[in-house]
Amino acid sequence: MFTKLSEVKVLRDPIHGYVHIDLQVIWELLNTKEFQRLRRIRQLGGAFAVYHTAMHTRFEHSLGVYEIVRRMVVEIEDLNRSLTEYEKVCVMVAGLLHDVGHFPYSHAFESIVNCNHEEFTQRILLEDTQIHSILMQHHPSLAKDVCDIINHSHPNNILTQIISSQLDADRMDYLLRDSYFTGTKYGQFDLERLLRTIRVKQEQLVIKESGMHTVEDYIMARYHMYWQVYLHPVARSFEVMLQCFFARLKDVYLHQPEVLKGITMFDVFLQEGTISVEDHFLFDEHACNYGIMCLRKVSDPILADLAKALLDRKLFGYVDASKETMAYYKKCLEEAGYDSRYYLRYDQASKKPYQPYIGSDIYILVNKQIQELSQTSNIVSAIVKAEVKKESLLFGPKELLQGF
Amino acid sequence: MFTKLSEVKVLRDPIHGYVHIDLQVIWELLNTKEFQRLRRIRQLGGAFAVYHTAMHTRFEHSLGVYEIVRRMVVEIEDLNRSLTEYEKVCVMVAGLLHDVGHFPYSHAFESIVNCNHEEFTQRILLEDTQIHSILMQHHPSLAKDVCDIINHSHPNNILTQIISSQLDADRMDYLLRDSYFTGTKYGQFDLERLLRTIRVKQEQLVIKESGMHTVEDYIMARYHMYWQVYLHPVARSFEVMLQCFFARLKDVYLHQPEVLKGITMFDVFLQEGTISVEDHFLFDEHACNYGIMCLRKVSDPILADLAKALLDRKLFGYVDASKETMAYYKKCLEEAGYDSRYYLRYDQASKKPYQPYIGSDIYILVNKQIQELSQTSNIVSAIVKAEVKKESLLFGPKELLQGF
Amino acid sequence: MFTKLSEVKVLRDPIHGYVHIDLQVIWELLNTKEFQRLRRIRQLGGAFAVYHTAMHTRFEHSLGVYEIVRRMVVEIEDLNRSLTEYEKVCVMVAGLLHDVGHFPYSHAFESIVNCNHEEFTQRILLEDTQIHSILMQHHPSLAKDVCDIINHSHPNNILTQIISSQLDADRMDYLLRDSYFTGTKYGQFDLERLLRTIRVKQEQLVIKESGMHTVEDYIMARYHMYWQVYLHPVARSFEVMLQCFFARLKDVYLHQPEVLKGITMFDVFLQEGTISVEDHFLFDEHACNYGIMCLRKVSDPILADLAKALLDRKLFGYVDASKETMAYYKKCLEEAGYDSRYYLRYDQASKKPYQPYIGSDIYILVNKQIQELSQTSNIVSAIVKAEVKKESLLFGPKELLQGF
Amino acid sequence: MFTKLSEVKVLRDPIHGYVHIDLQVIWELLNTKEFQRLRRIRQLGGAFAVYHTAMHTRFEHSLGVYEIVRRMVVEIEDLNRSLTEYEKVCVMVAGLLHDVGHFPYSHAFESIVNCNHEEFTQRILLEDTQIHSILMQHHPSLAKDVCDIINHSHPNNILTQIISSQLDADRMDYLLRDSYFTGTKYGQFDLERLLRTIRVKQEQLVIKESGMHTVEDYIMARYHMYWQVYLHPVARSFEVMLQCFFARLKDVYLHQPEVLKGITMFDVFLQEGTISVEDHFLFDEHACNYGIMCLRKVSDPILADLAKALLDRKLFGYVDASKETMAYYKKCLEEAGYDSRYYLRYDQASKKPYQPYIGSDIYILVNKQIQELSQTSNIVSAIVKAEVKKESLLFGPKELLQGF
Repeated sequence: MFTKLSEVKVLRDPIHGYVHIDLQVIWELLNTKEFQRLRRIRQLGGAFAVYHTAMHTRFEHSLGVYEIVRRMVVEIEDLNRSLTEYEKVCVMVAGLLHDVGHFPYSHAFESIVNCNHEEFTQRILLEDTQIHSILMQHHPSLAKDVCDIINHSHPNNILTQIISSQLDADRMDYLLRDSYFTGTKYGQFDLERLLRTIRVKQEQLVIKESGMHTVEDYIMARYHMYWQVYLHPVARSFEVMLQCFFARLKDVYLHQPEVLKGITMFDVFLQEGTISVEDHFLFDEHACNYGIMCLRKVSDPILADLAKALLDRKLFGYVDASKETMAYYKKCLEEAGYDSRYYLRYDQASKKPYQPYIGSDIYILVNKQIQELSQTSNIVSAIVKAEVKKESLLFGPKELLQGF
Repeated sequence: MFTKLSEVKVLRDPIHGYVHIDLQVIWELLNTKEFQRLRRIRQLGGAFAVYHTAMHTRFEHSLGVYEIVRRMVVEIEDLNRSLTEYEKVCVMVAGLLHDVGHFPYSHAFESIVNCNHEEFTQRILLEDTQIHSILMQHHPSLAKDVCDIINHSHPNNILTQIISSQLDADRMDYLLRDSYFTGTKYGQFDLERLLRTIRVKQEQLVIKESGMHTVEDYIMARYHMYWQVYLHPVARSFEVMLQCFFARLKDVYLHQPEVLKGITMFDVFLQEGTISVEDHFLFDEHACNYGIMCLRKVSDPILADLAKALLDRKLFGYVDASKETMAYYKKCLEEAGYDSRYYLRYDQASKKPYQPYIGSDIYILVNKQIQELSQTSNIVSAIVKAEVKKESLLFGPKELLQGF
Repeated sequence: MFTKLSEVKVLRDPIHGYVHIDLQVIWELLNTKEFQRLRRIRQLGGAFAVYHTAMHTRFEHSLGVYEIVRRMVVEIEDLNRSLTEYEKVCVMVAGLLHDVGHFPYSHAFESIVNCNHEEFTQRILLEDTQIHSILMQHHPSLAKDVCDIINHSHPNNILTQIISSQLDADRMDYLLRDSYFTGTKYGQFDLERLLRTIRVKQEQLVIKESGMHTVEDYIMARYHMYWQVYLHPVARSFEVMLQCFFARLKDVYLHQPEVLKGITMFDVFLQEGTISVEDHFLFDEHACNYGIMCLRKVSDPILADLAKALLDRKLFGYVDASKETMAYYKKCLEEAGYDSRYYLRYDQASKKPYQPYIGSDIYILVNKQIQELSQTSNIVSAIVKAEVKKESLLFGPKELLQGF
Repeated sequence: MFTKLSEVKVLRDPIHGYVHIDLQVIWELLNTKEFQRLRRIRQLGGAFAVYHTAMHTRFEHSLGVYEIVRRMVVEIEDLNRSLTEYEKVCVMVAGLLHDVGHFPYSHAFESIVNCNHEEFTQRILLEDTQIHSILMQHHPSLAKDVCDIINHSHPNNILTQIISSQLDADRMDYLLRDSYFTGTKYGQFDLERLLRTIRVKQEQLVIKESGMHTVEDYIMARYHMYWQVYLHPVARSFEVMLQCFFARLKDVYLHQPEVLKGITMFDVFLQEGTISVEDHFLFDEHACNYGIMCLRKVSDPILADLAKALLDRKLFGYVDASKETMAYYKKCLEEAGYDSRYYLRYDQASKKPYQPYIGSDIYILVNKQIQELSQTSNIVSAIVKAEVKKESLLFGPKELLQGF
């Protein structure tokens, strides 16, 4: 049904050895301007401020997710047998395109500016884009079905699980990839063995009992990556500083628009009105960072100061947060002449290694029955009962808040 | 005090890059016949029956432990400052020699034959050996002090902790090394970071709070290595078969000694009377395995059968054990003509990832105070409360007990 | 003389494990805006078009070079002994800052626009910058001496060799780093062993004879990285397309400046007049790429087309070049309506693995005498005599020039 | 035709990730006593005397060769298409069994004792062994055809090339494996890419032109492994000492057999008369090394001395050899009371990286034509013309011949 390439194309990848492409539709999607744009959106937010080599992009990650999905539907016997060719293509495309709607610094950006990358992923699939056009050429319902998989609304639950669940191709790729590119070892787990132990049972992806320790290891890998990389205080410092920056940018736009004269890349996101997929396409990390560079020189001292701090990595310091400290530091800041709306942020991070019964449990196949992971694993059972680790920090100017 | 080599000698090692030797005494100890014998004692027992590449020896491991100790006393500022040069040499030598008393297949061998590798380590240090002679040449109390460190009776508690505690150089090396040589990834942890976060406080090795996640990771690495490698059912199958073999060997020696005519390497261990350090020296894995090879052809069918099974890897099968199954299989075996004393074994494995308050806790330095690990880490706290994972198996002839 | 940090700072790095910083001056240089800018200049030119993970930056590489230099002056006994503390600091700073003058896409950019990154490296050290200011605070002649080392004009030849010779810290880092981030294995060589075999003899860095095979391996690693990565036809396709783009940009600027209205980041480089270090600072890869993004929509069809092609990776195809093919394809292009000044490029690549007697030979220490490498190594001697591998390609629109 | 296992069996392997077994015949061969014996024959000779972790065995290597062959016949399209299922099984079995006839320390052993491992590989396939019996059960001509492939007499030349040529599965596995287990990096090359570029043309395995640099890299990897590992002077010292030992053993057996009373494992190889496959089976490295252990205590001082030296790693020293030095050292030795027949050995090592036109050239596919490698590659062409590196050494007692 779907055209094969005359020769399998392989892209070298440090995580997977090679990414293998044998379908015309995948190759064409790769070469769209919307997918190529992902080369200009980095995978991690502020983590590069801690791990200086973390410059990898959503492009690489998207290829990696595709490759894991491809291997799953080929190598996992239960999937290879039960999925139709069309379903296989749908889920591989979903893996490839699931992040296509991202903005630069999505997390901070979306918290201030009113937009949403999931919505844009969907719109890029369905509106007038190169991606949409290619999907339509290859199959009339492909765009819709891929959309449904990404949105968790596809009738075949297995397809959704492959892309988005507690043990999906997305997480598998990013743990290994973020680990490699940060140079940490915490995210390593045994992908080969995991893939070998996946089965399908009762329309669920499940893990053979002999793979349980591999899953435990995967869960701990994920947990450690959260605390050592994604939620590292310095990474969060960069993120909250970005939030302060975007908040000030918005306020300046509303109240002193003349300050921003000649700096236009943010306009469409700051003004009222809809944002087109073309607007989305044009706003990549280079646009955003060049904007920040231009803002170094504007007359608003707060905006200029935050712009410089972001580019020159003069990040906020931090202290453990409590009601008292918050009030205390607010006062300190104001006495020192800072506007605390843009120079003080409370940020709470918390993370459980694994949480059962929230709709995407991990299941283990024990004597042909499926059990939720924490029923089978002593370790996971214990961890589920553990108090959630929380870290509440207050971020602000380093000369006032020590911490580094 | 201790002579330096004119040039640092380096031995290439896949785990540590290089092992560095700059002291004459270390170099001379390396070249003794007792230390070179460790090249002929493999590190792992039956694990090679699961992971075919696990052929590494106690020689390599001993060098690795030495290298970690060397780095600890040089690179950990608190140790470098507080230990005397003499203490540093003592603990490096202790790291090098802590396993020198091992027998081939120590675990199974010692369970049947009345001897003990810890005792022999001590005797090799103190009796008439090449090692003893070199230690005495370099310092009159060196042999005694190294012995005390290995025996946990040295007055400086720190030296003992470096060699033997829940976070010692021994475990650090073997997890990484066993992981490398089995080709599994479970034993990996971040040695560099761990070494960087060790401090000395109240005469204890402690870990800075920023290293806590690394310790959690190390503990899980250890736990997974236990279940995936050391306690793997097939590895245990080899071990219990060895026990059956040695038990039969002993019984044959006592009751039908003529069967063993011309096969002499086991004699000294089977007869009454003391075993000399020279006897110990001569009994390496090659002697033991050649003995097993010779026993393939003896007239006692049980001994010959077990010898063949060990060499040709025709291992016992296994089933989950319970009182009922035990009685049932005993009956089956006897009906099938097997002597259940040598063909049926119950084996229970259990392992906690970490157990506090047993005398060698791991301590974390939190705000200049030391806390036992499970007080600080939510994860470890939870795990400590977990039910202990136990696996009770019954091993016997595969045609009766399925399991592989 | 130079202030030490109260605690050694370590930055995690996948190539070196950690980058170690113990001097105040290094730490302060790291935190200048000019050095942080290197996070926004990628290390490789068009190689990311072949190896999609090659997103690493000159920031990471500069830290890596610094780390190798640091290890050299500490671990190589001959250097540790013979260099003064001041010289050690000079050469470490030189390692850190040697690339600070780079432009985005330096190679292509400088071939069209009249500027030069070596000149800017020097100016950033000597003019009014944060870097200059810090250097002056720490030592009045530091800026000048670092400059001299980078420019090959320092009286102590050894310092220059460490930074720039056939076997310098720069090449050592980039081969390993580019290899890691592309996911290829060609650039791997044994850095540990190389460092261990370096000696100083007759004011030269030389390699002990026992390290000769390591050097041979290094030379071949370099050679293979050239052909497999740096000179890969697809990487060169990106580079020549950039040249065409910049050439057209310049011509449009000169003849139809109104086309570029509102797109200002290139102006200072296109117009007559001097470029300040601040101009240099502001022009990073984000500025450049945002400029290219804006040019997608300009009225000049050639410029808009090349801008799109660069961002969307619609690269030129290529064929083997000869006089005849050149003329033939020129004609084809023109018939197809292309302006061959911007759509056809001849590019010759050639690379010897090693070339002796060009002023920065590699020397081997044989029986206390130094010999140029090709005198000692049969392999290198043979390779030196080999015909130089050349690859002359003609690049142009893929529908006319097949090749991918 | 050949029975498949109900489930693919996978054996973890650090080089290949997993070894995959899906055929009943392969699984049964693995479990024969003759194949399991390879666990007791190490892969490298004296290299462990330099690289202490080189304890890996011919068992692991044989599995690795099988796995590469399996991948070749499945993944290389030209092979998958052109070979019959029977041929595929033949060549996989040949890969698995090609080393089954090896002796402990084959090289030194065969140089003194009159036997030959190639002959025994053949006999084990064809005579009354477990291996033979299994081969016959699965196909009447399998034993014969596997034998022919290993002996280079099979009519299908491709099958022979897969097992034994300049670019065969055997070399591919041992370079990577020896590199991993010694901890050196010299033997690394890009196996994945090599496999991807193999084609069949004119009944030859050939390499696509785009794989030429990978082949160059492979050739250099091989060359460096020779000089850094296989031909390392210390490894050769162990080998020549073994030769001296076996030579003395033979002379003592012939002239003073009473010295060897009770030490029987060497007998069958020292006396006249044929050696059976069962004799071969019984003589593994453990038998040999236990024999050497027993010989430590015999009354012949030379034999006892050499036995001790081998086990305790008191290896010969060495000097560069020439006619004059040879005569000089012979005299020295004799004056010092040594018997130079057993204490002085001349050993010449020489190795070309690649030699064309000797019957197993490497071919490159250039524009659909095949060219011998040195015609295509400048580098290889140059290397072929290089003077052969030779290293002639004289080995003897270290107190007389310095060199370490």
